[in-house]
Amino acid sequence: MPELTATARSTPRRKRERGSHERALVESILDEGLLAHVGVLTDEGPVVLPLVYARIGDQLYLHGAPGNHLLRAMTEGAPACITVTLVDSLVLARSALHHSMDYRCVVLFGTGERVDDPDEQRAAVDALLEHMVPGQAEHVREITAAELRATAFVRFPIDEGSAKVRNEGVVDDPADLDLDLWAGVVPVSTVFGAPAPADARAATLPTPAHVTARAPSP
Amino acid sequence: MPELTATARSTPRRKRERGSHERALVESILDEGLLAHVGVLTDEGPVVLPLVYARIGDQLYLHGAPGNHLLRAMTEGAPACITVTLVDSLVLARSALHHSMDYRCVVLFGTGERVDDPDEQRAAVDALLEHMVPGQAEHVREITAAELRATAFVRFPIDEGSAKVRNEGVVDDPADLDLDLWAGVVPVSTVFGAPAPADARAATLPTPAHVTARAPSP
Repeated sequence: MPELTATARSTPRRKRERGSHERALVESILDEGLLAHVGVLTDEGPVVLPLVYARIGDQLYLHGAPGNHLLRAMTEGAPACITVTLVDSLVLARSALHHSMDYRCVVLFGTGERVDDPDEQRAAVDALLEHMVPGQAEHVREITAAELRATAFVRFPIDEGSAKVRNEGVVDDPADLDLDLWAGVVPVSTVFGAPAPADARAATLPTPAHVTARAPSP
Repeated sequence: MPELTATARSTPRRKRERGSHERALVESILDEGLLAHVGVLTDEGPVVLPLVYARIGDQLYLHGAPGNHLLRAMTEGAPACITVTLVDSLVLARSALHHSMDYRCVVLFGTGERVDDPDEQRAAVDALLEHMVPGQAEHVREITAAELRATAFVRFPIDEGSAKVRNEGVVDDPADLDLDLWAGVVPVSTVFGAPAPADARAATLPTPAHVTARAPSP
């Protein structure tokens, strides 16, 4: 698939060397993230909410209740911006204003489209489960047509957007490098803990291997 | 200080029992988060970017380069929505569409104001450093007037908004509870790793205790 589309708004204005339209990089960040922050222009101004998502090829999928305000605005053509951010480290410099974070993020622009085809809806749900825990799509009760009808699905193109990566650690002013001050980075990571069964019934069953693999026991 | 202001857009439309205007809850989420997703209505539509932030009382502070498109739009009165999200666990249900996450988030609405007073700017920088690593504000080279002049600061009121918390674990349909399927939660947490010095000079200095405290060595 081609690289992402570079437009004025999908090209970082500052620190352009940190920006990229490379699709493989964009996909790796989207696949590692857990939540997207979805910003939509509604009749009450911009609204930014965290939503789970899934990627299938060059499309991102969101879902929710049919009355979901954000999803409805998207399907009515409201402009949207979807951002997924991974924090890699705190950057502690010698000067206050060079404090920062190393991070990777993807920012996508566009408009959503309602997904009505049950097969595409099922594929989106499968992708969502696989995104949360690889292997999970095979381990659930089969979804019903009624459940799909009671859910709103939105497709959003992974097209106009970019990845932005800061991976520089500390960048202090040359004059500050000899100060008697420690400077460095503190790595930040997202860690999955030991799975806990939902109830007594689940506790009688072994924790599935794919779940344990997501969250290795110590 | 009073609770946050409940308006139509700052009151969750669905699952209202998860929403709260309680200031102490809002502040605890803002203080634990690392990044805010800042959504601003620009002339190119809504833009959502991750930014570091600090809280002082009932104000949130953002900063960046003077040319920063988002901050400039905010100081020109563009409506904005600032969201901070903490993920607490993956929720793996027996049915696909009951998969979810337990999370805590704060969503704030309003418009920003430019901060020109150097004392308020300094206080914002101190709060930002303390937010990243408690104790850090004391361990940096003193900020200069020229540095402050070369930085844009924005104040955003913690007023119209709400916290939303999902802390329910698995909620399956009653008919699914006896299925031969495991269900449960996988805890998710943000973990700070061992600090790494920026360069040879920093490596000659002991890692400050407040940094080690943020990121306890194993």
